[in-house]
Amino acid sequence: MRINKAQAAEMLLSMDNILILAHENPDGDAVGSACALCKGLRQLEKKAKISLEPAAKIDAYLTEGLTSGDFEPLYKVAVDTADCKILGVGGTSFQKDVKIDLCIDHHISNVFYAENTYLDEKAAAAAEAVADILSEMKIKITKDIAECLYVGISTDTGCFRYGNTTPKTLRTAADMADTGIDIGKINKIQFETKSKEYAEIEKLAIASMETYLEGKCAVIIVTNEMYKQTGIADSETQPLASIPRQIDGVLVGITMKEKQPGFFRISIRTNEPADASEIAKFLGGGGHKMAAGCSYSGTKENAVGTVLQYTEMVLRETGLI
Amino acid sequence: MRINKAQAAEMLLSMDNILILAHENPDGDAVGSACALCKGLRQLEKKAKISLEPAAKIDAYLTEGLTSGDFEPLYKVAVDTADCKILGVGGTSFQKDVKIDLCIDHHISNVFYAENTYLDEKAAAAAEAVADILSEMKIKITKDIAECLYVGISTDTGCFRYGNTTPKTLRTAADMADTGIDIGKINKIQFETKSKEYAEIEKLAIASMETYLEGKCAVIIVTNEMYKQTGIADSETQPLASIPRQIDGVLVGITMKEKQPGFFRISIRTNEPADASEIAKFLGGGGHKMAAGCSYSGTKENAVGTVLQYTEMVLRETGLI
Repeated sequence: MRINKAQAAEMLLSMDNILILAHENPDGDAVGSACALCKGLRQLEKKAKISLEPAAKIDAYLTEGLTSGDFEPLYKVAVDTADCKILGVGGTSFQKDVKIDLCIDHHISNVFYAENTYLDEKAAAAAEAVADILSEMKIKITKDIAECLYVGISTDTGCFRYGNTTPKTLRTAADMADTGIDIGKINKIQFETKSKEYAEIEKLAIASMETYLEGKCAVIIVTNEMYKQTGIADSETQPLASIPRQIDGVLVGITMKEKQPGFFRISIRTNEPADASEIAKFLGGGGHKMAAGCSYSGTKENAVGTVLQYTEMVLRETGLI
Repeated sequence: MRINKAQAAEMLLSMDNILILAHENPDGDAVGSACALCKGLRQLEKKAKISLEPAAKIDAYLTEGLTSGDFEPLYKVAVDTADCKILGVGGTSFQKDVKIDLCIDHHISNVFYAENTYLDEKAAAAAEAVADILSEMKIKITKDIAECLYVGISTDTGCFRYGNTTPKTLRTAADMADTGIDIGKINKIQFETKSKEYAEIEKLAIASMETYLEGKCAVIIVTNEMYKQTGIADSETQPLASIPRQIDGVLVGITMKEKQPGFFRISIRTNEPADASEIAKFLGGGGHKMAAGCSYSGTKENAVGTVLQYTEMVLRETGLI
């Protein structure tokens, strides 16, 4: 059932012994939302804990003390999770078809898997929806809670850069900053710091960048050799995908990652009006207009040749070259 | 004389035939502040125009129609300019010791060169101070004005990333977004788009990056050859300086630019607790704790060797290595 903010607040006020879950490989919004909710419930003397798997390294300090709690969960609440299939539910300890009593989310693609869902699809981040519910529950937004919510909101908006940032998003962030949290420091950790391994692979990836199709397509290739040379975890390479699209005049930015030798995962990012999903479809993939993905098995040369051929076809069909 | 917001508003309301100036090589805040003020004054049927030199390419659309106006200025207002020495005053058409009737600024280093100064040193951007004054003057914040102010505020905060971002900054940006401007699009142009020339020199600069002193110092070198190869304007290379400091563990990030053969301008950026100005001082330069600059004449090898030697000395003195 879809419920409103007041109903979600009322439900949470009536619960105790609460386990909070989020999507697997949780990002800053999943971690921030789960931690803020847990801290808020504990402020009301409720027993609550989180289970995330695995928490991103960068957010470890937010989750401190929140994963343990000596109680058997009576209620389960999921945050920032559009589908129960992607719930990170603690390895073998739960089934993926676990009954979720309440889901708090902002994804328009939410499939309403929970018994009750509070969905604010206008919210830039799940943390924005959590902030609203905590306020409805008259929970005091301490610095501790504000920091979690701020990490969530800033993560999902690329620190207020993306088009999902609304006036309300900025005002919610301002409310969090009012508590005295050091947003400059948080932003520095989240957005202005690169691991040595990431810096190394970024350097190699950027050096590999070539432009094609009259400068309208830029391609970077992360070879298996680069993975080996830098020792980077694949999960850390995600920001590379945004690099080729940033060049002035580029309509299609392509990032090809060969984590396994001879197998390429291909990220396609476009600028208006090019359609990434149209290109990905040719290789059996899919996605959205601005971001899509697919894969290719074969040599590097063939992978590049093939994806360029389909890119040219789509750009030509739509009169963009 | 230092005046308050109400006095600044009153002064502007009493003026007509107003020329608005800003610092030379104006950035988004200088351009945004000047344009917003000009549009606001014109809304009150006053004659006003701006003179900037030269406006950054990216902000050209903001200044459209604002540089012309068939009148002899009776009053001169400077925005975002801490010292009249750096006023961009239209080449030969003015003297640098031009009398400025009103200065609106946020730099703590303002030297009070104007007849009257409204200085809000807590404002993250001059545009934040301009927004306050326009509101005091009961000027309607149209989309047109909001766009200028938003560009100013987002420029000087690195799109709300830097430590100067306050709750008030975020709320002012929210007020601007309320007018319906497309902040996602503005941010994309300002923060997610690189010129081909910049992308090319960034690629070469990143490829040149080396770390020293147990990974606590990272150095990138932009050789004269790279300038020639990419044909980039020197003014466009400023963002390179932030790259070396971003690597995890780096305390001192150094960028050496050889625009003229054998002459290096050196930017030093630090992370807490390293002091950039202490290093720059050894080479006759100066600046702040987190950002300082100096220069060196000689070979590339000697330039790197010398700056590393002083960096090591400063880090060692302060127990950081």
